[in-house]
Amino acid sequence: MKYPSGIKLSTTKNISYDNRGMDLEEDINITNQYYIDNNIAFIYKKPTPIQVTKVDYSQKSAIIKQAYFKEPSTTDYNGLYKGFYIDFEAKETESNTSFPLSNIHKHQISHIKNIYENGGIAFLIVRFNRLRKTFVLFGKDLIDYMNNNKRKSIPLDYFKEKGYLIEEKYIPRIDYLKIVDQVGGIYEKKQK
Amino acid sequence: MKYPSGIKLSTTKNISYDNRGMDLEEDINITNQYYIDNNIAFIYKKPTPIQVTKVDYSQKSAIIKQAYFKEPSTTDYNGLYKGFYIDFEAKETESNTSFPLSNIHKHQISHIKNIYENGGIAFLIVRFNRLRKTFVLFGKDLIDYMNNNKRKSIPLDYFKEKGYLIEEKYIPRIDYLKIVDQVGGIYEKKQK
Repeated sequence: MKYPSGIKLSTTKNISYDNRGMDLEEDINITNQYYIDNNIAFIYKKPTPIQVTKVDYSQKSAIIKQAYFKEPSTTDYNGLYKGFYIDFEAKETESNTSFPLSNIHKHQISHIKNIYENGGIAFLIVRFNRLRKTFVLFGKDLIDYMNNNKRKSIPLDYFKEKGYLIEEKYIPRIDYLKIVDQVGGIYEKKQK
Repeated sequence: MKYPSGIKLSTTKNISYDNRGMDLEEDINITNQYYIDNNIAFIYKKPTPIQVTKVDYSQKSAIIKQAYFKEPSTTDYNGLYKGFYIDFEAKETESNTSFPLSNIHKHQISHIKNIYENGGIAFLIVRFNRLRKTFVLFGKDLIDYMNNNKRKSIPLDYFKEKGYLIEEKYIPRIDYLKIVDQVGGIYEKKQK
């Protein structure tokens, strides 16, 4: 299995609101921290799943001596917003024309489908790095596309047509909940 | 930091519905799998947070050579049930008389409070191992207790009075959502 790009090897990390030019994950983490600090939403990135196989207990703090990255079984981010369950995966692409579906694991897509069908709000956040454009694509439109297309990627035009462009600004960095406010309700099937 | 009790060192794990005498985490994982398989709820345990400091990339699969356990910033379990956001922490105690609050991190308690106050359903699942009794204690009652008591533990009697005993059975092992069905609505504050 490949090394997940999200892992940071530094032992300390300073979260700052004014450090431009970071990657999508950093932008989302900073935005989520802004939401938490302002009591707007409680959405967290799940830790990267790791299989621990050897631990040294001889020190004061246990040290992991051998471990492996595992495939995630769900999406990376989930949480609570205005009583709604929010669930999403965030991906970047260097392509100017389409988003390769190989970037998302099959069980992540099933998970998005399950969430959408069971009253949660599920979506992808996809950034086209070279275009500097970041879109929300709701679970319904992702599943619709996959049901009706044999292509192994989603063209940029589909994001323009069915997705929602996230305005990037100073604070919060990428205010994706604004899009959930505008259109999320359409996509959410309320249960009993 | 102490080694978290939830980590399993085996590289493979067979989930079976008929293996009695397991710990609370196993019981919850099997119950959650039952809920997923039957399209009832989508609740997952978050991976244990690990700080990776050294990785060997020379092999086909990256091998983590040095890493440390980190404190969790939220609860261990969350997900979606009937459109509701569900969030809980599960703990066992060997005490016959009370549940020590030192078992829960302060930021986990803040998290439960945030979830409860923002329209989610948050609770503890606490098992008194020697009594073979497992309770749900909703976030509201946990916070009420902490606001009104100086004690560093919650007595068993409080669980009997304010908590809900989970019936343990064959399938699903510990059907905690039955309690959410019965009483969860009382505790959930619906937002706009």
